[in-house]
Amino acid sequence: MFGSAKHSTGRFFLVSGITSMLLVSLISGQKKITHADTAQNLLKLGLTKQYTYAILRQITDTGPRLAGSPQAAAAVELTRQLMLEFGFESVHLEPTMVPHWIRGSTAKARLLSSTYGSQPLSIAAIGGSIGTPENGIDAQVAEVQSFQELRELGEKARGKIIFFNRPLDPALLNTFSAYGQAANQRTQGAVEASKVGAVGALVRSLTTSLDDLPHTGMLRYSPDASPLPAACVSTQGADILSRTLELDPEVRLHMNFNCRNLEDVQSYNVVGQITGSDHPDEIVLLGGHLDCWDLSHGAHDDGAGCAQSLAALLLLKELGIKPKRTIRAVLFMNEEFGGSGGIDYAASAHRQKETHLAALESDRGGFLPLGLGIGGSEERFNCFKKWEPLFQAMGLMGLRRGGGGVDIGPLGKSGTVLCSLVPDSQRYFHVHHSAKDILSSVNSRELELGTIAMALWAYLVAQEGI
Amino acid sequence: MFGSAKHSTGRFFLVSGITSMLLVSLISGQKKITHADTAQNLLKLGLTKQYTYAILRQITDTGPRLAGSPQAAAAVELTRQLMLEFGFESVHLEPTMVPHWIRGSTAKARLLSSTYGSQPLSIAAIGGSIGTPENGIDAQVAEVQSFQELRELGEKARGKIIFFNRPLDPALLNTFSAYGQAANQRTQGAVEASKVGAVGALVRSLTTSLDDLPHTGMLRYSPDASPLPAACVSTQGADILSRTLELDPEVRLHMNFNCRNLEDVQSYNVVGQITGSDHPDEIVLLGGHLDCWDLSHGAHDDGAGCAQSLAALLLLKELGIKPKRTIRAVLFMNEEFGGSGGIDYAASAHRQKETHLAALESDRGGFLPLGLGIGGSEERFNCFKKWEPLFQAMGLMGLRRGGGGVDIGPLGKSGTVLCSLVPDSQRYFHVHHSAKDILSSVNSRELELGTIAMALWAYLVAQEGI
Repeated sequence: MFGSAKHSTGRFFLVSGITSMLLVSLISGQKKITHADTAQNLLKLGLTKQYTYAILRQITDTGPRLAGSPQAAAAVELTRQLMLEFGFESVHLEPTMVPHWIRGSTAKARLLSSTYGSQPLSIAAIGGSIGTPENGIDAQVAEVQSFQELRELGEKARGKIIFFNRPLDPALLNTFSAYGQAANQRTQGAVEASKVGAVGALVRSLTTSLDDLPHTGMLRYSPDASPLPAACVSTQGADILSRTLELDPEVRLHMNFNCRNLEDVQSYNVVGQITGSDHPDEIVLLGGHLDCWDLSHGAHDDGAGCAQSLAALLLLKELGIKPKRTIRAVLFMNEEFGGSGGIDYAASAHRQKETHLAALESDRGGFLPLGLGIGGSEERFNCFKKWEPLFQAMGLMGLRRGGGGVDIGPLGKSGTVLCSLVPDSQRYFHVHHSAKDILSSVNSRELELGTIAMALWAYLVAQEGI
Repeated sequence: MFGSAKHSTGRFFLVSGITSMLLVSLISGQKKITHADTAQNLLKLGLTKQYTYAILRQITDTGPRLAGSPQAAAAVELTRQLMLEFGFESVHLEPTMVPHWIRGSTAKARLLSSTYGSQPLSIAAIGGSIGTPENGIDAQVAEVQSFQELRELGEKARGKIIFFNRPLDPALLNTFSAYGQAANQRTQGAVEASKVGAVGALVRSLTTSLDDLPHTGMLRYSPDASPLPAACVSTQGADILSRTLELDPEVRLHMNFNCRNLEDVQSYNVVGQITGSDHPDEIVLLGGHLDCWDLSHGAHDDGAGCAQSLAALLLLKELGIKPKRTIRAVLFMNEEFGGSGGIDYAASAHRQKETHLAALESDRGGFLPLGLGIGGSEERFNCFKKWEPLFQAMGLMGLRRGGGGVDIGPLGKSGTVLCSLVPDSQRYFHVHHSAKDILSSVNSRELELGTIAMALWAYLVAQEGI
C-alpha cells in the first residue's frame, strides 16, 4: 500500500525530484526506503486515516480542562489509556502540583450612566484573579492604553476601575506579535492598577475578533501590590465602554464575580514512547499541553498539540517504523497556569539522567502548518536544514531559526534543541482562550498536516541524530 | 499614516531587506515610494480596514445567487452600486444570457430493504437535472466506482439507478486534484447511466467531508442519450447506501425531486475600473464570479473573489494610487452554469478592440493565500518572477507557473496573460457547493490577505507593464 508512492501535486509548488535525494540505511526486502519515501508514506497514511481529529474529539469531549479541574484529571486518564491502546511503551504519569482556581458562578458587569442609562458588558474573570466583594465593586472608570499613561494619571486613578483598552494591532501579519504587544495588560494590569490605588481592573480581550465573547487568560499578582479583582471584557463591550466614557466621563461600572483561588492540587504529565532500537536512552520528544482555559474545550489550545503528538507516534507505529532513538510523546499539565508540568518534567529528566536530544512543541493551534522553528545555534540549524526539501514536499514553506515552547523550555538548560511547529497564525486569536476554541473550529486536514510534519521531524532526528 | 512603514515579523519567515529593493519612478514630495513601500502600505491598510469581509457580508446577504435567480439580479445591482459608491469609473453592466434552472420544492430519497427496513438519504438534485416523474422513481441500485465498471455491468444496469460512489482521494495534498479525479461522476454520470439503460443517477457528493449534506454542482446532458434525473447524496448517505447494498443487493431506492429547466434569461457581468493615467486603453483585470450554487450564500465560491476584486481597487484608491494602466474589476455572471459571462465578456472586449494585458481570477475560496499562478510562457513568467520577493514579504510562498480561471479563460485567445490567486486548498471542498459555504466559514484576515496580494499584482502590472 505504501511502497508505490506516486508524486502528487504539492500544496502549492509542484513536487518533483525528492525521491532518492536522501538515502537511509533501512532496507526493506529488496527495496531501499528513502526518507522521501517515508515522508510520502506519512503524508498518505496521515491524510487518509486522519487519526488526529478523532483523538482530538475524545480530548475535547472531556470538557474544559483547566489545571486542577476534574476535567483535567479525566483528560489525563483518557490520554494514558489511549497511549496504552496505541501500544506505546513506558506509559506513565509524572506528578506535578498545579494551582486550583475556580471561576465561580457569577461574572457580571454593567455600565451605569446618569445620561445614557445602564448597559451590560460581557466579561469573564481573568485566571488567578480574586473575586470581588460579595456585592461587587462600583466605581468610576479610567481608560488607558498603556502603563505609562496609567502612571501619568496619578491621583486621578485612585479609587477607580482601570480599563486597559489597547487593541491587538491588526496591521501585523504575525498575530502572535500583535498578541505579544498587548498581553501585559492582562498579565500585569491588575498589579499596575493596584500601584496607583485603583479598586479593580478591566482588560480588553486579547483577540483579533470584534465579538461579544470575553477571551480569558492568566494574570500575575505581586507581593508589592495588594491584589485587585480583574476581568476581561469582550472587544464589543470594550468599544461600548470606551464610547460611553467619551460621552459621559462620570460613567460608573459595576462588576461582580466570585472566582477564587484554592489550595494547589496534584496533577500529572502523561508520558509514553516508542523505545529506540539502537540508542534507547536518547530521547526525541513531541509534546503539547493537556490543560486549557475553562471557557471552552481547548481544541486549538492545546488539544491540537496533544492529539498531534499522540497521532504522530501512532502513524510511525502503523508504518512499522522502528526508530533507532526513542520517540516520546509528553502531554504536559498546566501550561496555562504557571508551567509547572514542564518544569517538573525537566527536573525529573535531570534526576534520571535522561538525554533529550531534541524536543518539539505544538502549541500555536491546529491550523495549516507553514513550517518548523528550530532553536539553537546556526550549526544546529544547518543540521536540520538539509531535511528542508522533505518538509517542503509536504507543502510546508520550510524551516526557520528559533523554536521552543513554554512546556519544553526548561529542557533547554540541558542542551536539548528546542523546536516548534509553526502553523499559520491568522485565525488563532479569533478563538484563543474563548468559548470559540471548540472542535468545530478545527479542520481535520490542516490538523493532520501538522501531525505528519511532527512525525517526520521526530523520525529524522531519531534515525540520523543531530 | 502610511509613510512610516516599519518592518514587522512576517507570516512565517522574518521580513527584511525588502525596502529599497525595487524603485518606482513615482515621487511623492521629497520621498521616493518604492514598490516595497506600496506593498507594505497595502498590507497595513488592508489588514487594518478589512474592507473585503464587509463587502462579502453584503454580497452574501443577497442570498443564494444561482444564475438566473432574483438573488443573482440583486447581487448585480448591489455590486454596481458599490462600485459607484467606491468611486470606480466606467461602471456598467454587460449583458449575458444564462440558464434558468429551478430546484423546486422537493428532494427526497429513501432506501427500501425488505430485510433492513427503510431509511431516508440526504440528497439534492444536480444542477441542470430534469426532475423525476411526479411520483418519483423506484428502482434497484447498481453501485460503481467508474464508467468502465458501469459499462462492464452491461445488461445488469438496465432499469436501475446507478450509484456513482468513487470518493475524493484524501491522500492528495492538493484537494483540487482529488476533486478533478472524481468530478466526472457528477458532470457525466447521468449520460453514462442513460447509455446503459438506467433510469436515474445518484452521485456521492464531491467533498472531503464525511457529513450529511449534499454538495451540488452542474451536469451535462448529451444529444446521444436521453436525459435522466440525477441527484447527489451526502457522503454519510453514500456510505449507508453502499453498506446496505453489501448486506442486501436487492435494496430499492425511491427518489423524488421536482427541479426543472426554464427558458434562458438575461443577466449581467458587473464592470468598473480605475482608469489608467498614461495608458488608459491597456487593461489589467481582477475578477471573480457573482453567481453561486443555490444551497448556500456562496461565501467562498465565489463571493470571496468578487469582494476581493472590489476591495483591491478600493485599497488602491484609498492609498491615492493613480495607476498608469487601467485596473478593472469584473464580476462575472454564470461561471457555475456554463460560463456564458466570461465568454460574452471576451467577445465584447474583442468587438471593442480592448487590450487586456493580464487578468487574474480569484475562484478557489477566500482562504489563506499561498501564492499566485502565472500563465503563459516562461519568458512571461520571469517578468513576474522578479516581483516575487514583494509577495513573499506579505507571507506568500511565491509565484508558480500556470494560471487562469473559467471566467477569464476566453480572454486567453487574445494573448492576455491569465493568472490566479492560489489559496490553500485544505478546507475548500469541505464547504464547496453545499449549505456550509456561508460567511461564518470565511476568516476576515485570510480573505484580506488575498485582496492585498491581488491589489499588489494589479498595481505592479499597471505601473510596469509586462
